[in-house]
Amino acid sequence: MRPSGRANDEMRQVTFTRDFTCHAEGSVLVEFGNTKVICTASIEENVPGWMRGKGKGWVTAEYGMLPRSTHSRMRREASGGKQSGRTQEIQRLIGRSLRAVVDMEALGERQIMIDCDVIQADGGTRTASITGAYVAMYDAVQKLMKKRGLKRNPIHGQLASVSVGIYNGEPVLDLDYPEDSNAETDMNVVMNSGDHFIEVQGTAEGHAFTRTEMNSMLDLAEKGIRELIAAQSAVLNLD
Amino acid sequence: MRPSGRANDEMRQVTFTRDFTCHAEGSVLVEFGNTKVICTASIEENVPGWMRGKGKGWVTAEYGMLPRSTHSRMRREASGGKQSGRTQEIQRLIGRSLRAVVDMEALGERQIMIDCDVIQADGGTRTASITGAYVAMYDAVQKLMKKRGLKRNPIHGQLASVSVGIYNGEPVLDLDYPEDSNAETDMNVVMNSGDHFIEVQGTAEGHAFTRTEMNSMLDLAEKGIRELIAAQSAVLNLD
Amino acid sequence: MRPSGRANDEMRQVTFTRDFTCHAEGSVLVEFGNTKVICTASIEENVPGWMRGKGKGWVTAEYGMLPRSTHSRMRREASGGKQSGRTQEIQRLIGRSLRAVVDMEALGERQIMIDCDVIQADGGTRTASITGAYVAMYDAVQKLMKKRGLKRNPIHGQLASVSVGIYNGEPVLDLDYPEDSNAETDMNVVMNSGDHFIEVQGTAEGHAFTRTEMNSMLDLAEKGIRELIAAQSAVLNLD
Amino acid sequence: MRPSGRANDEMRQVTFTRDFTCHAEGSVLVEFGNTKVICTASIEENVPGWMRGKGKGWVTAEYGMLPRSTHSRMRREASGGKQSGRTQEIQRLIGRSLRAVVDMEALGERQIMIDCDVIQADGGTRTASITGAYVAMYDAVQKLMKKRGLKRNPIHGQLASVSVGIYNGEPVLDLDYPEDSNAETDMNVVMNSGDHFIEVQGTAEGHAFTRTEMNSMLDLAEKGIRELIAAQSAVLNLD
Amino acid sequence: MRPSGRANDEMRQVTFTRDFTCHAEGSVLVEFGNTKVICTASIEENVPGWMRGKGKGWVTAEYGMLPRSTHSRMRREASGGKQSGRTQEIQRLIGRSLRAVVDMEALGERQIMIDCDVIQADGGTRTASITGAYVAMYDAVQKLMKKRGLKRNPIHGQLASVSVGIYNGEPVLDLDYPEDSNAETDMNVVMNSGDHFIEVQGTAEGHAFTRTEMNSMLDLAEKGIRELIAAQSAVLNLD
Amino acid sequence: MRPSGRANDEMRQVTFTRDFTCHAEGSVLVEFGNTKVICTASIEENVPGWMRGKGKGWVTAEYGMLPRSTHSRMRREASGGKQSGRTQEIQRLIGRSLRAVVDMEALGERQIMIDCDVIQADGGTRTASITGAYVAMYDAVQKLMKKRGLKRNPIHGQLASVSVGIYNGEPVLDLDYPEDSNAETDMNVVMNSGDHFIEVQGTAEGHAFTRTEMNSMLDLAEKGIRELIAAQSAVLNLD
Repeated sequence: MRPSGRANDEMRQVTFTRDFTCHAEGSVLVEFGNTKVICTASIEENVPGWMRGKGKGWVTAEYGMLPRSTHSRMRREASGGKQSGRTQEIQRLIGRSLRAVVDMEALGERQIMIDCDVIQADGGTRTASITGAYVAMYDAVQKLMKKRGLKRNPIHGQLASVSVGIYNGEPVLDLDYPEDSNAETDMNVVMNSGDHFIEVQGTAEGHAFTRTEMNSMLDLAEKGIRELIAAQSAVLNLD
Repeated sequence: MRPSGRANDEMRQVTFTRDFTCHAEGSVLVEFGNTKVICTASIEENVPGWMRGKGKGWVTAEYGMLPRSTHSRMRREASGGKQSGRTQEIQRLIGRSLRAVVDMEALGERQIMIDCDVIQADGGTRTASITGAYVAMYDAVQKLMKKRGLKRNPIHGQLASVSVGIYNGEPVLDLDYPEDSNAETDMNVVMNSGDHFIEVQGTAEGHAFTRTEMNSMLDLAEKGIRELIAAQSAVLNLD
Repeated sequence: MRPSGRANDEMRQVTFTRDFTCHAEGSVLVEFGNTKVICTASIEENVPGWMRGKGKGWVTAEYGMLPRSTHSRMRREASGGKQSGRTQEIQRLIGRSLRAVVDMEALGERQIMIDCDVIQADGGTRTASITGAYVAMYDAVQKLMKKRGLKRNPIHGQLASVSVGIYNGEPVLDLDYPEDSNAETDMNVVMNSGDHFIEVQGTAEGHAFTRTEMNSMLDLAEKGIRELIAAQSAVLNLD
Repeated sequence: MRPSGRANDEMRQVTFTRDFTCHAEGSVLVEFGNTKVICTASIEENVPGWMRGKGKGWVTAEYGMLPRSTHSRMRREASGGKQSGRTQEIQRLIGRSLRAVVDMEALGERQIMIDCDVIQADGGTRTASITGAYVAMYDAVQKLMKKRGLKRNPIHGQLASVSVGIYNGEPVLDLDYPEDSNAETDMNVVMNSGDHFIEVQGTAEGHAFTRTEMNSMLDLAEKGIRELIAAQSAVLNLD
Repeated sequence: MRPSGRANDEMRQVTFTRDFTCHAEGSVLVEFGNTKVICTASIEENVPGWMRGKGKGWVTAEYGMLPRSTHSRMRREASGGKQSGRTQEIQRLIGRSLRAVVDMEALGERQIMIDCDVIQADGGTRTASITGAYVAMYDAVQKLMKKRGLKRNPIHGQLASVSVGIYNGEPVLDLDYPEDSNAETDMNVVMNSGDHFIEVQGTAEGHAFTRTEMNSMLDLAEKGIRELIAAQSAVLNLD
Repeated sequence: MRPSGRANDEMRQVTFTRDFTCHAEGSVLVEFGNTKVICTASIEENVPGWMRGKGKGWVTAEYGMLPRSTHSRMRREASGGKQSGRTQEIQRLIGRSLRAVVDMEALGERQIMIDCDVIQADGGTRTASITGAYVAMYDAVQKLMKKRGLKRNPIHGQLASVSVGIYNGEPVLDLDYPEDSNAETDMNVVMNSGDHFIEVQGTAEGHAFTRTEMNSMLDLAEKGIRELIAAQSAVLNLD
């Protein structure tokens, strides 16, 4: 029995609020149950120095948590003077994932900056971030295409992410914090709308996991990601 | 004529959403028109090293802006490795202001950590932060009093803050971004519910200001702060 | 009765020693009683990146305290690896104040770097810094005008700064350290030679202050600044 | 055809040189072909602050590359002032992996510090690091058991790591640098001697990968890790 | 012929101004010609963590240059966020030298913090710093002995420092900036009042130097240091 | 009697292993007994900003120690966020020394980056670094001359370095760690193949040293350096 009473293959309620803030080209509040993340996509008409003059674009991401998005207050990274290893790991994952569905030549020599800021955390902040950032990026690219008259959509296909794990000996989908902090294994999966894998990151916390367990977890992830992609399609009016 | 069409002595619409996030002892979304700030108050059962063993508490504040809370994206301070001078100035101001209405002995040897995170900026983020942080702190202290059985309320009186300035040669109340970025003079005022001053910070941007202009601005500030204190009272059910 | 025996509206003895060090274009040792600050103004024939190509100049300031300028030794900021919030606040104030009397187009595309280094502190280091930095900047600009053949003096008018406060319930002028550390209210005022305000920064330390108290303090500030501007005029042979 | 001429399921030559340096409790030079890493394990008789007094130990790791371990010289992280996100990601992976085979209560309140320093890089530095660090840790723990009279070996089972990927459309084992920099998918796998997974980290570089490709890669990883565990057993005289 | 017209074995005029600032236990302005350094010695009643409980004291030093102590303005190290290699080298040299004349057991478990801040630089700032810091430390220790009733003077003997070099092919004493920046060899020597060496640091700038040249330079250094020690004795009323 | 049983004027066994790693233009493992340092020389086809356009080259060096190259583990400088004063002092010494035998105009507008990484420390790491770096630089320059068709060898002459000291009252050559940590005086000497001095850095640790002692140490250094230069010649096939 899961703490939330959900079935093992049941996701939390997922919502996307578009245009959540007014300045960014794309701005989405994504909620996976009590996990809430503001995802913005900003279009910048230049690229990092090492990419200049190649006619290609870039997508990169930054991630942060408000100090009191968590049960007890965390130190503010800006005042500590550096980002933790965990933060860097997550923002590298978000950027790498989103780049997998962007055609950099079609984007042209400009950069999409993704910012994912967690305002309330209840497990799965990185998977919610990726899933919400896709929607924000989609909105930003639509505006860009109109404004700059791009002929080809640089985004090909869709992408979403969910966590799966082994909790109390059973494979479960979309772990919340009480599960996450007690899971024996925790796996984050990113897939595209063609059912292919972009990222798989599985970690044994308590006991090592078998090939059979891995397969069960991947089955759950596939189910969850299909639901997330359908939810994205609905909010973006894609079919 | 102000860009927003407001009268010179007219504030933007102000709202407080209490319990905006679920983990902090006090959590308020404050809105001054399009300026939106999440203010949380966290109670920590310890004080900084230099205060230990004195039987007194402390209130301190941190401030941040989401990178895309502004028109064009700002660098994330956590990735830049340090907080700007402006950020430090503002968080010192917030902390100093709130301390003015807290009795540190009644609070006891514990700390109230205020976090003000701007999610959308349209001028006046520091005054909105102070005004909203008061409400978050009030909520947090109410919980603390119940939980720890405090007999005396460590908070005495109320406090709010507003900006005033000279725009197009006329004194105006509660500047938004288009005014703020073109004002000749900009002044931030913090007052308590007894109409006394906690902080006055006035800066000539374009031309130096006269004693008469200063008096007009202080009159406007007094009017605005009375309205803000009334709005706080309403949302907190104080009379 | 003030600890120093001064009358409430009496300033400490103020002296300016020009050409205090030999390399800077302007170099002044300013003394407000026992507070001693070396102020230098350096002319640099370039501007920060964001200002290039606009035909305008810039004035900026840095502030520091020698580790043993104070009663007990402070940590050296260079070895600590960063400047404190207080330091940044002060150097932003100095730069902002001096910019108010400089015509950036007449200055041309070059920068005036002000350095204020406190060698002995007894209260009022920021107001002494601003007042002394004006003299150093004046000297540096005179040399610049000769060397580069500037036709118009980029400096318009004079500027000085003094602190006022409420000490033992009475408004006093130019607080020294024993007063500063016990004042109920502390206000730093910057005014120009036309009796207009450049900056007003008032902070209630112990009790909030009234409009009447504010007016008394501003009267004292006006008196003190007139005396400082007269002293600057005397040492610079202005009339 | 692989650049090295190896069969798709063929590992590079792997060697372990024990006691490579003289001061560390465990010191191993591990070579996966041209990739060479010095792995040391240091026993420290204390634990991080947050673990004190719990009677349990800890294992943590740090990772670095000599500036000229790579084709072109990389910036030295110590002079740059911080470790890159990649470095942090790798050292977190190494530490987390090794902790999976250590019984922290049997270890007692002490810490094993692992250092993996790449002196020559040709792909797979993180998998070589984990595989070599196990041997160094084993040696260090043997010495510790003798010195401190530990009754139970805190290390349970063995652990090794290898990379697999899709190169030119085919699953391959143990990628060297020319393969790694052109692979369509890259996966690092850590397994224990019971054929269970500790970590799986797969990333699509060029095209997303299918479940079938994932299974082929996991088959290869299992084969490679069995060979590595056999090689560890041989050099450590385990059976 | 030297730029200053001095004879090859002639020092610049040397002066010590004691009690230059009022807060430090020892405070000396030392001048070697146009090189001016404020040296303060602060007594702190504690020692660094690694020395606690051993009944011994410590002497350490920090060094800095005001940004405009030099011909063109240097970046302020506090705003740059770190001390340069040169600064660290110099402050390590100052501390190490002064420790050579202090009996740490007689000092007791307290620390002498030396600060050397260059307000005007014209070559030889490190040798002036050491020579002046001795006087400041002497004054501070005299006060300490009285205040704490120390029976034995922790300072044994005297110590001074001077630079020597090869300029235009000839050995010269006490190089000023024009010489220093063109010298073929530059050597800093620290000696005690017994004519013994504490430190010798010689560097070939343009051409390598011979044993004969080294001997000539050491002869000059010995002469200069004897004069400096005599000047210290005069100002401190030692015989 | 020295701890190692060596005669006072006897060096440890010295070996150079060329081409120790495969990527750097020059790569040498140098061993002075148990002290082992990897020295690499990298040719970079650009110079620091302040040298551009002058047609001259540059040589610079960085130095590091693996955390467990020492008896007890040292903190990794990259994770600590800065290089220690000792590290900076050493790398400045290495760079300065090597520049003394390079003709920067013959080198042309390119840079030689030297990296010295200590993998095992037993005293004398800086002198071994300089001596080994010379060999690595020589190899790198030979490759550069062929690749770029340089007509003149930018390296003129040879250079080596050794430590000398006073141990148990007697002058000794090439101190190992047990001697180094107990020496009364420690001196590092860098000389060229013409018996001239490049650097002399002597420090009294326990007691100040006399001119006679200094001369004895310099005699030993000269003997040691001649042997090191002969060993370099042998391995590089110079005569």
